[in-house]
Amino acid sequence: MDQALKPSTRDGDGGSQAHAGSGVLTLARSLSLHHGGELIEPRLAWRLAGRPDAPVVAALGGISAHRRVFDVAQPRAGWWWEVVGPGLSLDSEQVRVLGIDYLGGSGESTGPIPGQPFPSLSSYDQAEAVRALLDHLRIERLRGFVGASYGGMVALAFAERYPTRVERLVVISAADRTHPMATAWRTVQRRIVRFAASLGRASEGLELARALAMATYRTPGEFAARFGQPPRRVEGAYVFPIEEYLFARGRDYAGRYRSESFLCLSESIDLHAVDAARIPVPVAVVAVREDQLVPLEDLRALAAKLPRATLHELSSVHGHDAFLKEAHALRPIFQSLYGVA
Amino acid sequence: MDQALKPSTRDGDGGSQAHAGSGVLTLARSLSLHHGGELIEPRLAWRLAGRPDAPVVAALGGISAHRRVFDVAQPRAGWWWEVVGPGLSLDSEQVRVLGIDYLGGSGESTGPIPGQPFPSLSSYDQAEAVRALLDHLRIERLRGFVGASYGGMVALAFAERYPTRVERLVVISAADRTHPMATAWRTVQRRIVRFAASLGRASEGLELARALAMATYRTPGEFAARFGQPPRRVEGAYVFPIEEYLFARGRDYAGRYRSESFLCLSESIDLHAVDAARIPVPVAVVAVREDQLVPLEDLRALAAKLPRATLHELSSVHGHDAFLKEAHALRPIFQSLYGVA
Repeated sequence: MDQALKPSTRDGDGGSQAHAGSGVLTLARSLSLHHGGELIEPRLAWRLAGRPDAPVVAALGGISAHRRVFDVAQPRAGWWWEVVGPGLSLDSEQVRVLGIDYLGGSGESTGPIPGQPFPSLSSYDQAEAVRALLDHLRIERLRGFVGASYGGMVALAFAERYPTRVERLVVISAADRTHPMATAWRTVQRRIVRFAASLGRASEGLELARALAMATYRTPGEFAARFGQPPRRVEGAYVFPIEEYLFARGRDYAGRYRSESFLCLSESIDLHAVDAARIPVPVAVVAVREDQLVPLEDLRALAAKLPRATLHELSSVHGHDAFLKEAHALRPIFQSLYGVA
Repeated sequence: MDQALKPSTRDGDGGSQAHAGSGVLTLARSLSLHHGGELIEPRLAWRLAGRPDAPVVAALGGISAHRRVFDVAQPRAGWWWEVVGPGLSLDSEQVRVLGIDYLGGSGESTGPIPGQPFPSLSSYDQAEAVRALLDHLRIERLRGFVGASYGGMVALAFAERYPTRVERLVVISAADRTHPMATAWRTVQRRIVRFAASLGRASEGLELARALAMATYRTPGEFAARFGQPPRRVEGAYVFPIEEYLFARGRDYAGRYRSESFLCLSESIDLHAVDAARIPVPVAVVAVREDQLVPLEDLRALAAKLPRATLHELSSVHGHDAFLKEAHALRPIFQSLYGVA
């Protein structure tokens, strides 16, 4: 059962919602990392919001997600605003939602400092940070851990390491290890960023990398429907509609995310490897057939390895990004989080 | 019927094969280009090899292919060596094989000069060059035009413009226009190369772009089978097996291809658009289900638009590169080129 929330630090963030809290926790004097090395006095930024006495569900997304999962006052400020909130698919009237800024990311948790080396991070390290946060918040046991993309990897790592601290998982578009084709796309992205950074142009490298990443997140079907028009001629050069779209997204991203964080968490995805057979809690595995990064076959294999899995196969033109968009399809899957444990 | 070959220029190339010829033809004083602009005194490098009195089949491949389709003396020097040659799937004892270096490419045909602007090229421009070459060689009519990838686009453009100059087409992994997802991958590649070139590092940009392109040419299935091992640690950094593979291919490519040619012909693919309904000759359309660049649906749609099409659907772990590898599956499709016209 969840114990009462007694956050020891608050920053006023989310203050419009009674009993919601947020803060930045110093996790430990030193956090030993799964792949070697350590973080000294690592900080973890967190946020808890939803019905005050409701059970707690952790909700983690892609590497660019952050602790503001939803925000009643400013809906678009939440990264999962189309899916999570009062009365939405993951209903914050039924559960309190716990979010974090990832270690290594561009939020208020400890992350890379430009020009300084930063160790490789594992999904196990993020899981360890969540575990320490639960101790701090005196949450004995999560009602659920919902993770999509990188967040799903962290959910699996958490449940393998701390199975008594969570009742059930919902894992969307994440497997026990990454597919070599997805690693292919990401290693090219990281090499682009490192190449550009070596020339003092990291932001432009991140723009290119994000444009590439966007293509992997979506589907041929979506692009065919939206971007089939002929190219425009701009100052004598052809520019294709899909090109304008991808690079607009790339520029936007490069303006709000740090290249060092991108390198760190992109690598963390590719290093992810957990032992699914050692996860005893029930796991709802959500697979999107059109996902180019996490093939359906890999999630079928994950479900087969997990001792207690249910597999949900969805179709979505949004591909890997379906978790951000397919609120209707996800709603029944989240119902399992609301009942009495 | 094919007329006798009377090449006006020879360079001794392929001289070990009787009645084979090759040369570099000046196409015209000026070639007006489909997208505007012109090429002054453009040169087209060509090569014709096979049984001397056999009917002529043009064979064009991807943007990096060249006029040496096969080579009896040095088999690996031919870009299509696993498929074309004496007794092979496309049998040079049954047909003479005509190849070209693409306009805009890195061979001996006219292409971009570093630091100088070069106009956008269309698949129609390549078709026009082939037409002029046929005039020069006094080939009234090709027995067939076999094109894969970009070569398939050129084959379609040729048959739309000059339907009396070819009896039939075999078009492998090419459609009447490109898919926006494929354009997405390629625009990112071109932006990488242009970014790197703007910093004086074009070759490194080409290496990155080619690594990305390789991932699009292949399939998740192949990568899963070959590159599932954990990463190695090299000088403190993780390097993934697929990463080593892609960047070895990228470095190799950057050493033998010019970035300006890559930009030109990559763009030419994305500008490709022909009117399939206006191609009256029989076309064997060969689709590979696993091709990430040319979706099966697009080739089904092409076959539906062509007045006289047969559609062959293959499965191959090699994806877009299947035309280089699937000699056995292609053999029966090439049979239609051998009979009496």
